[in-house]
Amino acid sequence: MMNDLTTPIELRRPALVHFGSGTLAKLSDWVGASGFKAPFIVADPVNAARLSALGLGEVNCFGGVVPEPGSDNLQEAVTAAKGADLVIGFGGGSAMDLAKLVAVMVGQSVQLSDISGPNRAPARKVGLVQIPTTAGTGSEVGTRALVTDPETNSKVATESPYMLADMAIIDPDLTMTVPPHVTAATGVDAMAHCVEAFTSKRSHPLIDHYALTGIELVGRYLRRAVEDGTDAEARAGLSLAAFYGGICLGPVNTTAGHALSYPLGTRYKLPHGIANALIFPHVLAANAEVCAEKTALVAQALGFETGDEAKILGGATAFCEGLSLDMQLRAHGITEDSLRAMAEEAHGIRRLLDWNPRDLSVDDIEALYRRAY
Amino acid sequence: MMNDLTTPIELRRPALVHFGSGTLAKLSDWVGASGFKAPFIVADPVNAARLSALGLGEVNCFGGVVPEPGSDNLQEAVTAAKGADLVIGFGGGSAMDLAKLVAVMVGQSVQLSDISGPNRAPARKVGLVQIPTTAGTGSEVGTRALVTDPETNSKVATESPYMLADMAIIDPDLTMTVPPHVTAATGVDAMAHCVEAFTSKRSHPLIDHYALTGIELVGRYLRRAVEDGTDAEARAGLSLAAFYGGICLGPVNTTAGHALSYPLGTRYKLPHGIANALIFPHVLAANAEVCAEKTALVAQALGFETGDEAKILGGATAFCEGLSLDMQLRAHGITEDSLRAMAEEAHGIRRLLDWNPRDLSVDDIEALYRRAY
Repeated sequence: MMNDLTTPIELRRPALVHFGSGTLAKLSDWVGASGFKAPFIVADPVNAARLSALGLGEVNCFGGVVPEPGSDNLQEAVTAAKGADLVIGFGGGSAMDLAKLVAVMVGQSVQLSDISGPNRAPARKVGLVQIPTTAGTGSEVGTRALVTDPETNSKVATESPYMLADMAIIDPDLTMTVPPHVTAATGVDAMAHCVEAFTSKRSHPLIDHYALTGIELVGRYLRRAVEDGTDAEARAGLSLAAFYGGICLGPVNTTAGHALSYPLGTRYKLPHGIANALIFPHVLAANAEVCAEKTALVAQALGFETGDEAKILGGATAFCEGLSLDMQLRAHGITEDSLRAMAEEAHGIRRLLDWNPRDLSVDDIEALYRRAY
Repeated sequence: MMNDLTTPIELRRPALVHFGSGTLAKLSDWVGASGFKAPFIVADPVNAARLSALGLGEVNCFGGVVPEPGSDNLQEAVTAAKGADLVIGFGGGSAMDLAKLVAVMVGQSVQLSDISGPNRAPARKVGLVQIPTTAGTGSEVGTRALVTDPETNSKVATESPYMLADMAIIDPDLTMTVPPHVTAATGVDAMAHCVEAFTSKRSHPLIDHYALTGIELVGRYLRRAVEDGTDAEARAGLSLAAFYGGICLGPVNTTAGHALSYPLGTRYKLPHGIANALIFPHVLAANAEVCAEKTALVAQALGFETGDEAKILGGATAFCEGLSLDMQLRAHGITEDSLRAMAEEAHGIRRLLDWNPRDLSVDDIEALYRRAY
């Protein structure tokens, strides 16, 4: 918590972001004006079924993005993209993350293992546009992509300025068909990006503005969007929160919340947002003592009372339950005998855990999983 | 005041912004990594005398940027830039605005009259970096440049996505040598960008976040920086306010405050910030009745009490006087017999005045100038 306004910070974001209802209509003009001839869409099956919404006519598409995609899924997409001069991610975080990797890999003889980690990807030869259809990941404005390595069951992070899109179109209308439980989970994911960056040891006052605004937007709008998916203002508020969460991910990134969620995704294929929601109240409560002031601001923004660890845990859990999320690990198929191994796995994710405001041992993490169980 | 979060908005900003103390050191690495061989600096004489700070060794420079530059000054810079592959604006708004125009004009057979207005500039063939040395204009993050037409005495606005920089380096340390009266004037300019966008008929809640944060930063830090130019945190706060003011200029822009300031610049060569400061309290007060809630937030952020028109005028004037600004037009060489002509000139700037929350007639504007006189 030592950064002040003078501390150097690197801000990356697509130079052009269209935000708001109906902005998807900007795509075809931009593609034409930019001179691209061979756009290629990376999408999950749901979004691959509504390609006509893009207004690009007949267009090549890899429509087989799976949740928590692995390197095999990525390779299929790269192969299908041959000949493209513009890659368009159209979907949630999985589709947009794969699109980033496809954009730097297509037409270049590199494998994921050649480019994973920071700043190893080659300059991309093709354009890149991101169009989120959920309000959660914030991947549309970032430089990072996560793919699961099937052999180690761990998330492989690749990060490069070349993976930043030329343009993002954030049209909240695209999220209106997201069902309530996915709305809830992805909204909590966006909020978790903001909360974890806000309370990180690397937090920066410039990013804190985005983080707190994002948390306030989730506090104001998430329940409304869960209860009425066609609430346009609520959907826009959540799309903005996701955008701001994505901005938090760049220079600050997440901490224990995400580290402890990853094993739920890699081992049990829990959707990323659900995994985050299950862990969120426990990490917020565990960290409360060492960052009381910021925790109080989070509680206020989400509409529950601050207080001691137990009170924070109760308030944050009730917030999530108010979104109809079942907040026990056991309800999602996690078995008690795996908690220790999950704790060891989470503890190893030092790129995130090292920035958590409180040091958490394997025992601490296992105890936390048990409370959440 | 009808935009809500769902209203489409186009956000442009350099894809890479380095912010914070000492970030100027990022320049030479970036130039090398990007493969540029012939950087060219556009600067005023003060900054042209400290080119070694850029760390680029021997470098070509046009060091003759004048305040409120005219098309002749621009043409000199374009001629000097021949052969450059990267243009770097290094200075205040005048230097950065000229750098934008040089970047789209160098090596292309176009005159200012061919490209002025929106979206007429050709795609630029060279790189563009902006490095502000004052905290005021916000030009470093925008797509617009203003040049005075010597024949009509009016500001010619040119705007193009091609005039957006590839990178901005906002290093508040560069502003530490700015003298107190220029610190005050440029700080008020940054604040005016935020206030006018915040109260514009085109205001947008997404931009309001930046605007209000910028106003708060000016309220917290401007007086500190005027009193102690080496206050690093205050300087950083003001650089951030200027950045956010620049973000406000893009999709929303200014209103009556800037329109009424321009004649002071074009006729009397008053520095842009001083001109803005002289007008700011009067426009805030004149608009207070039609946007009471936002005016109250401005007053709170700047630390004075809200109230009726007279109270707002008194509070805002006292805020500026607290920065040692002499707040009477007569103190700056303006003659009373020109007020009517100035009012007519200001009234003609419809691109700004049409968005002022209150309609102002020529008589209204003249009366306002008389109160300020």
